[in-house]
Amino acid sequence: MYRGMDVLSALQFSRSDIEYLINLAEELRRRVESGERLELARGRILFTAFFEPSTRTRLSFQFAMAKLGGLTIDLGPEEATSMAKGESPEDTLRTVDSYNPDLIVVRHREPGFAARAAQICRAPVINAGDGYNEHPTQALLDVYTIWRVFGRVEGTRVGLMGDLKYGRTISSLSYTLSNFRDVEIHYISPRELQPREEVLKILDQRRVKYELHEKLDEVIEKLDVLYVTRLQKERMKPEEYERLKGSYIVSYDYLKKFKHIPIIMHPLPRVWELTTDVDSLPQAMYFEQAKNGLYIRMALIKTILGV
Amino acid sequence: MYRGMDVLSALQFSRSDIEYLINLAEELRRRVESGERLELARGRILFTAFFEPSTRTRLSFQFAMAKLGGLTIDLGPEEATSMAKGESPEDTLRTVDSYNPDLIVVRHREPGFAARAAQICRAPVINAGDGYNEHPTQALLDVYTIWRVFGRVEGTRVGLMGDLKYGRTISSLSYTLSNFRDVEIHYISPRELQPREEVLKILDQRRVKYELHEKLDEVIEKLDVLYVTRLQKERMKPEEYERLKGSYIVSYDYLKKFKHIPIIMHPLPRVWELTTDVDSLPQAMYFEQAKNGLYIRMALIKTILGV
Amino acid sequence: MYRGMDVLSALQFSRSDIEYLINLAEELRRRVESGERLELARGRILFTAFFEPSTRTRLSFQFAMAKLGGLTIDLGPEEATSMAKGESPEDTLRTVDSYNPDLIVVRHREPGFAARAAQICRAPVINAGDGYNEHPTQALLDVYTIWRVFGRVEGTRVGLMGDLKYGRTISSLSYTLSNFRDVEIHYISPRELQPREEVLKILDQRRVKYELHEKLDEVIEKLDVLYVTRLQKERMKPEEYERLKGSYIVSYDYLKKFKHIPIIMHPLPRVWELTTDVDSLPQAMYFEQAKNGLYIRMALIKTILGV
Repeated sequence: MYRGMDVLSALQFSRSDIEYLINLAEELRRRVESGERLELARGRILFTAFFEPSTRTRLSFQFAMAKLGGLTIDLGPEEATSMAKGESPEDTLRTVDSYNPDLIVVRHREPGFAARAAQICRAPVINAGDGYNEHPTQALLDVYTIWRVFGRVEGTRVGLMGDLKYGRTISSLSYTLSNFRDVEIHYISPRELQPREEVLKILDQRRVKYELHEKLDEVIEKLDVLYVTRLQKERMKPEEYERLKGSYIVSYDYLKKFKHIPIIMHPLPRVWELTTDVDSLPQAMYFEQAKNGLYIRMALIKTILGV
Repeated sequence: MYRGMDVLSALQFSRSDIEYLINLAEELRRRVESGERLELARGRILFTAFFEPSTRTRLSFQFAMAKLGGLTIDLGPEEATSMAKGESPEDTLRTVDSYNPDLIVVRHREPGFAARAAQICRAPVINAGDGYNEHPTQALLDVYTIWRVFGRVEGTRVGLMGDLKYGRTISSLSYTLSNFRDVEIHYISPRELQPREEVLKILDQRRVKYELHEKLDEVIEKLDVLYVTRLQKERMKPEEYERLKGSYIVSYDYLKKFKHIPIIMHPLPRVWELTTDVDSLPQAMYFEQAKNGLYIRMALIKTILGV
Repeated sequence: MYRGMDVLSALQFSRSDIEYLINLAEELRRRVESGERLELARGRILFTAFFEPSTRTRLSFQFAMAKLGGLTIDLGPEEATSMAKGESPEDTLRTVDSYNPDLIVVRHREPGFAARAAQICRAPVINAGDGYNEHPTQALLDVYTIWRVFGRVEGTRVGLMGDLKYGRTISSLSYTLSNFRDVEIHYISPRELQPREEVLKILDQRRVKYELHEKLDEVIEKLDVLYVTRLQKERMKPEEYERLKGSYIVSYDYLKKFKHIPIIMHPLPRVWELTTDVDSLPQAMYFEQAKNGLYIRMALIKTILGV
């Protein structure tokens, strides 16, 4: 890691990079929670360009920048912008880059878009999601959450459930976990939504132990972490969706059948796959997880800006 | 009132609370108008979540925070957010609350929503409108306006006109006025849009003198203040709307028929019920009223932040 | 020019005004590029109201204000605002003006709207486009770009191509160029989209040399600058559009046919009229042009705020 670096893929982070960021996140958290008003990024400008809708990630970066004392300028919803006049996102970014932002955060439905943006832009670029490909800062906050709960990442058994084929958090989190010894990954999904070959290949190269499952029941009691994601309707045939929907719902009643309940994580937003009655369980970590996102992003921004 | 308090209903403010806020608003106004750049809220973050469209109130809070030296982060229009993915507003608020804002302003079409938000959120919550229920900061700026014009609120005769049943400013303003002695409230509306029972009941308990009217003509010359509000088309049957529309238009020509013209207030935005030719009358106070909103909200934010 | 002035038309700037702004832009550029964080506009608020969609101009002003240390508050996209409730833009501006912004930037599809806004508002108003009429700050950045490339504006031969009748940058740039001696303007457009009479009349009064052309081929080799603009589909009959489209495309292959290639400018966003393979030519100045917009707008804001 270095000042001015782009953040395009979870693969670029080594174990020591991740530990550095976690330690920095913990330090910033202590300072913020003690009421300190940081001014590290005073006069710096973060530009956020979400060509796909986002609440959580966009706001999380905006709060992170504000808590560091900096300013965010947002592209605005696509309808309000020159996209409406037919401008390409490349032209938009190149133009805004000429306005001299200190950092650009970008999301786009096209895999590889962030890498292209990084080539176009003088400012460092953070990939906040490029289609089904990657979402590396989400993966950082995910491992940070595991680290906070268990005091370590090594040796944890993590179940990833939902649409594993098109879920960009899945590939990024798998890559990030692959840095830690003795991690076991359990993929739980309909057969047609299993992780992409390219993801499993990298795990094989890195000798990470993983298993594929179709049913959560088979594996839930072995898990330390159950990471639930959405099964997007638009990815499946309507009859498939209706048939499978029920098998991937995590509810209070479902969890209560088991003696051992893993911690429950979710990148949010959730729809029907994780019911609100789970919120009251001590294992529900998804809002804590969102909060961790604030601090890990502060750590990342601070590192990139070199402030 | 206390640092960190929620602002959910106009009923929570006593007469001395209101007077405290008015005095503070006056002091802040003097400082701002003399060109002073306040830094009281430096490093503080206001989060605004308007699940219903708003210009005035959203911008008024944003300016108020900026004039205090603080920063506002906005949820953004609903289309651009995770709502589009089906997230509940409760999940959105709980997530953003975990990002540690200093204050949250919320509007939602559901009565009671702000109270629910206040239960969910660690940060103090200001109700900027919950359906037909309440809009307490609007009521504060309304009485502040009356106070500025007449030098007092006691003994004023205030006519409230329009959709009194579903207008949230009506209930909040009625409650706020009920703190002041010898106030007379005149409600002017179609019979089916008279104030809700719950509102009148509270006035009865507080022994406030009020009357119900169907025609403005009957009462206008008795009034010190005529508070005009929209008659929302969507609340009425089409034939009703067409029949009544004409009876609730306040225009220059209409007002000029009377010897005594009360001051004219309106929460804005106006549509057809208040014509632009009224703007030139010295009694037109609605833009002044909007301006008063800036300073009373600065006073409120300052009080809640304890800065 | 003076503190607090409105910027409504390019006609209001004399040659020495323009040179003053260019020199100030150069100074601010040096300071920003050397990494200095300016605080000149600390505590000042710019309000941007784009009643028509905009990326470039809106963001350019927002960055300019941020780089001066000030804050921008944006009206937001029209759908999210009280427009949805039927409020007039005049009421919106009058209300926001009462919130005491230091400067208002406005765009609206109606010619003359900015001038009306300036009458309504206490705060100084900058016209960021009023229909087909004018876009004076665009013209400032355009001449700034010419000045940076050639070291002077006098004596340059400038070709303006595209929809010259309805293009607001065309009239503003023509007026701005008219301040400089021996400038030659070549208008290249379909006959029905030639510049409006009122524009040519002013050039006649100011004794500016200009020519009208239908084909770029006739004139390209004489030009120092080729300023390409969009031919908006909606301005033309469908059959006209299809017939003419091909004649107004500037591409790498087209340009390579000529011995002398002028610098290529474009207000952006571009659609099909300027192909991306031109970007690699040293004559492609449109992203540099956008960047110049940042600094000239900083200079303008600084001058109006008197900071």
